[in-house]
Amino acid sequence: MKKLEQTLQKIKPLYEDVMKKTQARLDDLTKPPGSLGVLEDIAKQIAGITGCVVPELPKKAAILMAGDHGIVREGVAPFPQEVTPQMVLNFVNGGAAMSVLTRHVNSKLYVVDVGVASDLPDVPNIIKKKVAYGTKNMAEGPAMTLEQAVQAIEVGIEITEMAIKKGAGIIAIGEMGIGNTSPSTAIIATYSKLPVKDVVGRGTGVDNDRLRIKIAAIEKALEINMPDPSRPLEVLAKIGGLEIAGLTGVILACSANRIPVIIDGFISGAAAVIASEMAPLAKNYMLGSHLSEEPGHKVMLDFLDVKPMLIMNMRLGEGTGAALAMNLVDASLKILKEMATFSEAGVSSEL
Amino acid sequence: MKKLEQTLQKIKPLYEDVMKKTQARLDDLTKPPGSLGVLEDIAKQIAGITGCVVPELPKKAAILMAGDHGIVREGVAPFPQEVTPQMVLNFVNGGAAMSVLTRHVNSKLYVVDVGVASDLPDVPNIIKKKVAYGTKNMAEGPAMTLEQAVQAIEVGIEITEMAIKKGAGIIAIGEMGIGNTSPSTAIIATYSKLPVKDVVGRGTGVDNDRLRIKIAAIEKALEINMPDPSRPLEVLAKIGGLEIAGLTGVILACSANRIPVIIDGFISGAAAVIASEMAPLAKNYMLGSHLSEEPGHKVMLDFLDVKPMLIMNMRLGEGTGAALAMNLVDASLKILKEMATFSEAGVSSEL
Repeated sequence: MKKLEQTLQKIKPLYEDVMKKTQARLDDLTKPPGSLGVLEDIAKQIAGITGCVVPELPKKAAILMAGDHGIVREGVAPFPQEVTPQMVLNFVNGGAAMSVLTRHVNSKLYVVDVGVASDLPDVPNIIKKKVAYGTKNMAEGPAMTLEQAVQAIEVGIEITEMAIKKGAGIIAIGEMGIGNTSPSTAIIATYSKLPVKDVVGRGTGVDNDRLRIKIAAIEKALEINMPDPSRPLEVLAKIGGLEIAGLTGVILACSANRIPVIIDGFISGAAAVIASEMAPLAKNYMLGSHLSEEPGHKVMLDFLDVKPMLIMNMRLGEGTGAALAMNLVDASLKILKEMATFSEAGVSSEL
Repeated sequence: MKKLEQTLQKIKPLYEDVMKKTQARLDDLTKPPGSLGVLEDIAKQIAGITGCVVPELPKKAAILMAGDHGIVREGVAPFPQEVTPQMVLNFVNGGAAMSVLTRHVNSKLYVVDVGVASDLPDVPNIIKKKVAYGTKNMAEGPAMTLEQAVQAIEVGIEITEMAIKKGAGIIAIGEMGIGNTSPSTAIIATYSKLPVKDVVGRGTGVDNDRLRIKIAAIEKALEINMPDPSRPLEVLAKIGGLEIAGLTGVILACSANRIPVIIDGFISGAAAVIASEMAPLAKNYMLGSHLSEEPGHKVMLDFLDVKPMLIMNMRLGEGTGAALAMNLVDASLKILKEMATFSEAGVSSEL
């Protein structure tokens, strides 16, 4: 708990004075003011995060948290639970979508077992920080104890601080866990106060029958646990997941250490909602990436006031949208750094 | 005219059999079928274009056409016409947004004067193919003769064939021309049959007073010229622009040579509308990039059945959205090529 409290206390506002200077430079570049839209917004936000008027391109890292979910016993997911550890191996062996996309954007990929339901083999590059063998079935009671939730958050903080020590200047988040759209749906239903059926989706391939089962299981979890939205840690413990808690820790640690953190899809978004409820200033450190196919994702991003840049009908998770966005962040910083000003280029700035 | 006719005749359908094989591979990769959305669509489309089940990453080129517009004499644009040649120099000197972004995605940038209203200095890297010193004022009569429109299209074809000879396997299009949202608006109003006020926008910085002037000027151009939508070449000549014609040629030449062409914003979209009316199969060779702030852009993309991937509130043109999209195309092809299959990775593919 001490590491979490220290982290929360370290989160401070953005540097407004630096952002003003960055805005002045953006307006002096050879383009009509604001015409590069979100590319300009990102550059300014990173200036406010880092305190540099013209930030250097950061070294990239992605942190992928894996965990399992007791709720799968209700039949909410079309894939068996064995897929979680199988995919963890696929990530570190380089064959998963997230492996390909982090290589593509030249990012490190840290793969963390924070709660996989089985023991993983001893292979290099899996970071073993298991807090429990999956969560309990939230349709029958709390998914985790408060202690487990804190422990998983602190795993996220620890891994993030390690990544930063190794040079990371921007962090993308991602996850793996069969069944994890169910706790994410429960979390956004709790905070948006919308009925489950309005924020539920088909995850990575749920048919109509299973969708009914999924809605019923999530509704049961909310009825039994009665999560109180004003107590985000309790919400996380009751209806969250170990990987969601781990990612909450990553977001909080990025915010505390003034590092931009790129939010991926629906499960990452659930972690971002919890983080923003624990520390409202953390929102300032979040960058959007894509809008996923999950209907509840838009509700989350609106709740967080985070803008997605990519609309590509993706619904895989893993951090794949966040990885793609890293290239756009680089583009944004290069615009700020490399474009000529009106006077340098001899271009007339008005009639 | 001969080069244009030959090009139109060379445009053929996609290779459906190859696309089927690519789809089978995509479905065998370690992710739920279709869960990478547009990334999968792009890979499949490029397979159908090139005839390779797993295409190699193509060498990139961007072709930027610059031209001026007689309509500026109506007061439609907030920047003076001198900005067109000033920006052409900025492009080749590396200081413009498009210069930065093509470097970022490792693309060549060909800058072509197809109709700038003044003589450009003799500096390397400006490709001089001027057809006229800008268009005539379309609010008073046709912007170009039919011969000029054909000549500008053939400049586009010629430059594209040169770029392909130098190795380009994918081409992004972009443009520069003060006032060029006005002809683009006139073109989409003609094809969508929507009133000008529903498809007009603020270009790169038009205020309310100027917006009224702009609408009136475009309406006058449509009344005087009475473009017949069933004759796209005539539409292009009467209410188009030299750079729009040049880009029409680029799109047709890409289609004829089985090269994917990335459409940028509103002006590139107008060229794509003309190209698709001259050769409906050309739509199959187009990839979307971003959705611009111009209200008429969505109407265009729907007309073309082209999906944007990026929604970033951009409204600069130059090809900036198309350049950013090049990185997403690379990601798409790497997914197809580098991801492990279920059997390779030992991952269960169903319950």
